[in-house]
Amino acid sequence: MNYTVEEKEFFMREALKEAKIALDHDEIPIGCVIVKNGEIIGRGHNAREELQRAVMHAEIMAIEEANAYEKNWRLLDTTLFVTIEPCVMCSGAIGLARIPQVIYGAKNQKFGAAGSLYDILTDERLNHRVDLESGILEVECAQMMQDFFRKRRQK
Amino acid sequence: MNYTVEEKEFFMREALKEAKIALDHDEIPIGCVIVKNGEIIGRGHNAREELQRAVMHAEIMAIEEANAYEKNWRLLDTTLFVTIEPCVMCSGAIGLARIPQVIYGAKNQKFGAAGSLYDILTDERLNHRVDLESGILEVECAQMMQDFFRKRRQK
Repeated sequence: MNYTVEEKEFFMREALKEAKIALDHDEIPIGCVIVKNGEIIGRGHNAREELQRAVMHAEIMAIEEANAYEKNWRLLDTTLFVTIEPCVMCSGAIGLARIPQVIYGAKNQKFGAAGSLYDILTDERLNHRVDLESGILEVECAQMMQDFFRKRRQK
Repeated sequence: MNYTVEEKEFFMREALKEAKIALDHDEIPIGCVIVKNGEIIGRGHNAREELQRAVMHAEIMAIEEANAYEKNWRLLDTTLFVTIEPCVMCSGAIGLARIPQVIYGAKNQKFGAAGSLYDILTDERLNHRVDLESGILEVECAQMMQDFFRKRRQK
C-alpha cells in the first residue's frame, strides 16, 4: 500500500477524530483507523473507562470492527493508522490479525512496543512482520496526549 | 491468592474443559479461567476461526467476561489460569487488566511471551508485574496441543 503523504495525513486526521471522541469522554485520547484499498473498514478509540473493558484500546476496537466488516480474522492488504505508538497488547493483536502495514503518529516512550520498549512488529522470531512508519502528524498526535495529561494533573 | 496444589489443579482442569470446547470446534485448544476468592468469574477458549475475530484468544475472552461480571476493567485480587503460556497480545492484556497472578500449564516455545520469547509479565519497565507460575497439569495441557497439531498435519 503506497499511500502518498497527503493520503497518509488524511487517514491520520481520521484517526485523530477518533482520538477526539475518546478525549470528549475523558479517556486517554488515542484513535485508530484501518484502511483497505483507500477505504476505512474499521475505526476505534480508547474506551476503557466508558466501557470498563481493559482491552478496549483504539487498535483493538478498530481490528474488531474490521474483522466484522471483512467477516475474516485476517486483515490482509490493510494499513492501520494510529495516533500513538501501539502498546504490547495492541502490537501483538496487529500481528495476530496479519495487518501488513502500520503507520503511527507519535512515540510512546513509556509503553510503546513498536520501537520504544519492544520491537514486537519487526521481531524476526515472530511469524508476522510489519512495514512500520512513524511521525505522520506527530505534533498533533502528541499534543492531544500532552493536553489530556496536563488537564488531569491540574484536577 | 495462596491456592493449594489441589485447588490449582482444580482450576486448571476447568481451563482444560474450555480448551476442549476449542478442540471440538477444530480450534487450537487453549482454555482459560479467571478466579476471584475461589470463584470463577470469567471463562474463555480460543475462538478465532469460529468467530473470525483475530483477538479472540482464550485469555481475552475470559478477561472480557470477567470485566463484564465485575463491571470494572481492573481485575484486582484475581488469578488467571491458562493451559498454555500467553502470547504477546494476551500478556499485554493481562497487564492492562491489572491481573496480579497468572498460572499456566505448558510453555509455548514459539509464541510465548511469559518466559519464552519475552518476559512481558515480569518486565520491571512496565507499570504492572505479575506473580507467575507454570507447570500445573503441564503434561495434559501440552498433550492437547500436540494431539491437535498431529491431527492437522495428517489431514
